[in-house]
Amino acid sequence: MVKSGHFFAALPENGAEEAIEPLAQWPGVRIERIVSRGQASPPGFWYDQDGTEWVILLAGSAALLFEGESAPRVLRPGDYVEIPPHARHRVEWTDADAPTIWLAVHSKSTD
Amino acid sequence: MVKSGHFFAALPENGAEEAIEPLAQWPGVRIERIVSRGQASPPGFWYDQDGTEWVILLAGSAALLFEGESAPRVLRPGDYVEIPPHARHRVEWTDADAPTIWLAVHSKSTD
Repeated sequence: MVKSGHFFAALPENGAEEAIEPLAQWPGVRIERIVSRGQASPPGFWYDQDGTEWVILLAGSAALLFEGESAPRVLRPGDYVEIPPHARHRVEWTDADAPTIWLAVHSKSTD
Repeated sequence: MVKSGHFFAALPENGAEEAIEPLAQWPGVRIERIVSRGQASPPGFWYDQDGTEWVILLAGSAALLFEGESAPRVLRPGDYVEIPPHARHRVEWTDADAPTIWLAVHSKSTD
């Protein structure tokens, strides 16, 4: 069966948390849509992931801070980053006025 | 190192073939940008791939025909399809007037 969908459809309502929805998954890979509405990482929190993440911002805007970099990277639609395993990073801000929509491709660790 | 880029930047000029550029690659995964400018699969040609492909159309438009389906699926920006291994398919047409830009995530066979 060929599964299909529309990436920008059925955006979740405002919520306290980012909305993470799986779009596809197969051995070694997980593809997600993430919708942010002004959320940011909590103070002092850093993502530290075992696998590679490739993420592209497709609507809205956001700033990602990587540990050791002097300033956050501001992302606009079309901007992508490849985040190596254990590259510590945090979301400094996401657009407060419009949904920020990310497409994330995660490698899954094989454990 | 965190690699980054802009998905819609530096579109290739018109050419006889679709332009396929790797954006990221790690064990088991290959992410590509594909730019089509009116190309279609040759008559009688079918893609028949060993791995899963997940593809989202982000600009332009296109029609994908899957073997056994009665009509092609027309894709507009935001539409995605997950193509299982050996689901034979072909590109019936892509937009003749504007670039059609695809983001494709391929699983790589482990051989």
